[in-house]
Amino acid sequence: MSGYFRRVDDVASFSADTGTKADLFTGGHLFVGLNCFEPGQAQRLHTHHGADKFYLIVSGRAVMAVGDESHEAGPGTVVWAPADVPHGVTRALERTVMLVGIAPPPR
Amino acid sequence: MSGYFRRVDDVASFSADTGTKADLFTGGHLFVGLNCFEPGQAQRLHTHHGADKFYLIVSGRAVMAVGDESHEAGPGTVVWAPADVPHGVTRALERTVMLVGIAPPPR
Repeated sequence: MSGYFRRVDDVASFSADTGTKADLFTGGHLFVGLNCFEPGQAQRLHTHHGADKFYLIVSGRAVMAVGDESHEAGPGTVVWAPADVPHGVTRALERTVMLVGIAPPPR
Repeated sequence: MSGYFRRVDDVASFSADTGTKADLFTGGHLFVGLNCFEPGQAQRLHTHHGADKFYLIVSGRAVMAVGDESHEAGPGTVVWAPADVPHGVTRALERTVMLVGIAPPPR
């Protein structure tokens, strides 16, 4: 569309082998991108030291884990993974697209 | 749902008078919330000094402005408003819900 506008559907891509990541925008303070999964794919538990993160499920459905919480999440659910709290995608139940934001941006 | 999971639909609210804002999560580095508009409502051009921001249109449709760009944006469009670049919602064309992230968080 233009420099400041991007459509998730134009950027999302999928791999039969593993979940994929795509960058949308990166500034000095914030990164925004996509995580895309085929059914059955996962993202192992991990921690961002000193960085806050969220996921928004744009489409699909997945079991998500943050700290000691685990829930199925579908479109319109925001999952908050504060700095230093382990989080991940236990299992995508459908083809799933998540918007992800991380602040400060990963190096 | 729980401490780390929230549904946009559970938080979105609308006012006949003006666009509304709602907080979802705030950490030391990142704020995530909602901006909700009835048709015809707007958010005046403004600038976040030293803070990056994005909007994701979750539902509805609006004319959005960033810098010298202006576009209609619908579901799944991400609008990037980097630090110190003026941005706003020129006009909501439908009842519209936007996820918003700002880093570092507003004080």
